Amino acid sequence: MSLGEFDIIAKYFARRQARSDVVLGIGDDAAVLNVRADRKLVLAMDTIAEGVHFLEQAAPEDIGYRALAVNLSDLAAMGAEPSWMSLSLSLPHADERWLDGFAKGLFELAEAYDVVLIGGDTVRGPLTVTVQVGGWVEHDRYLTRSGARAGDDIFISGVPGEAAAGLALLRAGAKQADAAVHLIQRFLRPTPRVQVGRGLRTVATAAMDVSDGLLADLGKLCEASGCGARLELEALPASPPMRTLFRGEECLQHALTGGDDYELLFTVAPTNVAALRDRAFAPIPLTRIGSMTSEPGVHCFLGGKEYVPARTGYDHFAQTDHR
Amino acid sequence: MSLGEFDIIAKYFARRQARSDVVLGIGDDAAVLNVRADRKLVLAMDTIAEGVHFLEQAAPEDIGYRALAVNLSDLAAMGAEPSWMSLSLSLPHADERWLDGFAKGLFELAEAYDVVLIGGDTVRGPLTVTVQVGGWVEHDRYLTRSGARAGDDIFISGVPGEAAAGLALLRAGAKQADAAVHLIQRFLRPTPRVQVGRGLRTVATAAMDVSDGLLADLGKLCEASGCGARLELEALPASPPMRTLFRGEECLQHALTGGDDYELLFTVAPTNVAALRDRAFAPIPLTRIGSMTSEPGVHCFLGGKEYVPARTGYDHFAQTDHR
Repeated sequence: MSLGEFDIIAKYFARRQARSDVVLGIGDDAAVLNVRADRKLVLAMDTIAEGVHFLEQAAPEDIGYRALAVNLSDLAAMGAEPSWMSLSLSLPHADERWLDGFAKGLFELAEAYDVVLIGGDTVRGPLTVTVQVGGWVEHDRYLTRSGARAGDDIFISGVPGEAAAGLALLRAGAKQADAAVHLIQRFLRPTPRVQVGRGLRTVATAAMDVSDGLLADLGKLCEASGCGARLELEALPASPPMRTLFRGEECLQHALTGGDDYELLFTVAPTNVAALRDRAFAPIPLTRIGSMTSEPGVHCFLGGKEYVPARTGYDHFAQTDHR
Repeated sequence: MSLGEFDIIAKYFARRQARSDVVLGIGDDAAVLNVRADRKLVLAMDTIAEGVHFLEQAAPEDIGYRALAVNLSDLAAMGAEPSWMSLSLSLPHADERWLDGFAKGLFELAEAYDVVLIGGDTVRGPLTVTVQVGGWVEHDRYLTRSGARAGDDIFISGVPGEAAAGLALLRAGAKQADAAVHLIQRFLRPTPRVQVGRGLRTVATAAMDVSDGLLADLGKLCEASGCGARLELEALPASPPMRTLFRGEECLQHALTGGDDYELLFTVAPTNVAALRDRAFAPIPLTRIGSMTSEPGVHCFLGGKEYVPARTGYDHFAQTDHR
C-alpha cells in the first residue's frame, strides 16, 4: 500500500464545499474563518475508538457517520448551528476501500448539515477518529446543562433505549426481524437532533445530549444545575420494536442506561411548556418524563413507588464493561 | 485502577484559567467563545501517536508538551495569536503518575502562551493525543504557504536539523555529552515560534512550519505558491553541537530532512528584507537560505554545483521508516 498522507487527503477528504465563513480550508498549516460580531463560537470534540465506541466489524461508512454525528449532537445540545469540522484519523494502514467508505459516511452527514471539513491530521496508528466541530449561536442564546430550576419539566426527544437495544441485537447476531433492523439502524446511524436544539434556544432552561445513558446524563444535568430530578418511568416513550424483541425489564434498562441514542434531554419552565408544544418538531416526539426537584439526586418512580435501577450508567475508565 | 473519566478531567485538566474570550469552558456539551469582528479565527489540529511521533519510552511530560507544541507551531506559521485548545486523549489505562506528568508538560506550555483548555474527550484506547488549537489574527493579516513569488528570499528560523540529530542520539542511547543534551532537548521540547510568526505578519509573503523536513516542506510551499526554490546549502545555519557529534554529511542530511524542529520557513520580498532585519526576533536567528525561482521544484546548490540529496522527506503512510 503506497498511498501517502497527502494522497489520502487529496483523494478522500479535500472536497470542494464552500461556506462564506470558511476563508481558508484544507491544505495550509491551519484554517482561517470569518466570524460575526452577533454570534458566539461553539466548539465540541469527541473521539471514537474501535472496540469502545464501535464494534470491530463496523462498516467504515458507519464509523465515518458516527464520528461526526456524536459531535453534531453536542452542538445540538447547545442550540448551535453547525458550520465546520476538523478530522484526525489514526489508521493502522491506508486501505482505500475503507477510506472510501469512511469518507462516504462522514460527508453524507456533513453535507446534510452544510458542515465543511477545514483540516485535520492523518497518522498511522490504531483505528481512532477524533472530530472537532464548530458552529455558531446567536448572541447569548446557547443552552447549557446548568440552567435547570426546581419545578421545571424534564423532556426527552425521540425514544431512548433503542440504540442500546440495537447494539445488544448486533452483538447477538440477530438481524432478521424488521424490528431488529430498526433498532440496529438506530445504533448505527443516530440522528443528531440539531433542529430540535435550534428550536429549544428560547424555550428550554437547560439541555444536554444523552451519550452515557439517560440516568447518568440526567444526574450530570442535575449536578450542573444544583438540583435533583424525579423521573416518571411510566412516562418514558414506548418503543414498539423494543417491546417486540425484549422483556419489559430489559426495555426499561436500555431506556435508562443505554448510551448511544444521542437524544436531547432538556428542561422547560412550566410557563413555557405551551410555547414548546407550539413549535413544530415533528416527526420527532418530545416527551415529558419528569420534573426537577430541589432535593439533589435522580429518583425514579414506577407505579407511584420509588424504583432503584440495577445499573446507572457507563464510564470509559471505571468500568470493564466495554461497548 | 478505579479513576473514572470525570475524575480524570476534574483532577488533571479542569484548571481555572481565565480568558475574556472563553465564555464557557470544560464541563458542558461544548465550549462557547466570544469573537471579535476585527479578527479572524485560526484553527489547527494535530495528532501524535506512540511509536510514530514520540518514542515508547517517552516521558509523559514531554508527550504533553509536544502535543500542544506541534499545534502552536501551526498557528505560528499563520501569524496567529494562540488562545485556546481542545484535547482528545486516548489512553490504555488511567495511570495517575502518567496523567500527572502529561498535564504538567501540557499546561507548562499552555500557560506560557495563555492558552486555555476548553474541552475535549478522554477515551480508553491506544496512546494517541489529538489537540485542536484556536487563535486569532487581525483582519486579513494571516500568512499562508501560497504567497511566495519568484525572486523572494527564503528564510529559516533557528537551526534546522538539531531535533533530528537529537532523536538519532536518543535512539543510540548517547546522552552523555553537553552537545548531546542540547540536541536531545531540541527534539523533546521544540519551541513553537509564535513570536516570530506574529512578527512576520506584515513582512513575509509566505510561511509554514517545518514538520516533515526542510526539503519536503519547502517543496510544499513551492507547490502552493506555484514556483520553485534554489536552496544554498552553505547558507544553512551551523550547529556547533551537531558538528561536534556528527560528520558533515550527516549534519546536512539532518538539516534537510529532519522533521521535528518546528522552525518557521518563510519568504520575504527583497524590498522587505531590511524591514525584517529591523524587527527584534533575538535570540532566534533568522537565516537567508536561498531564493524562490520561477522554475518549479526545489534545487539544492553546494559549492556552486547542484547537489542531489540522498533522501528528501517523510510521509507517515508511504514510508516504513517510523519515527
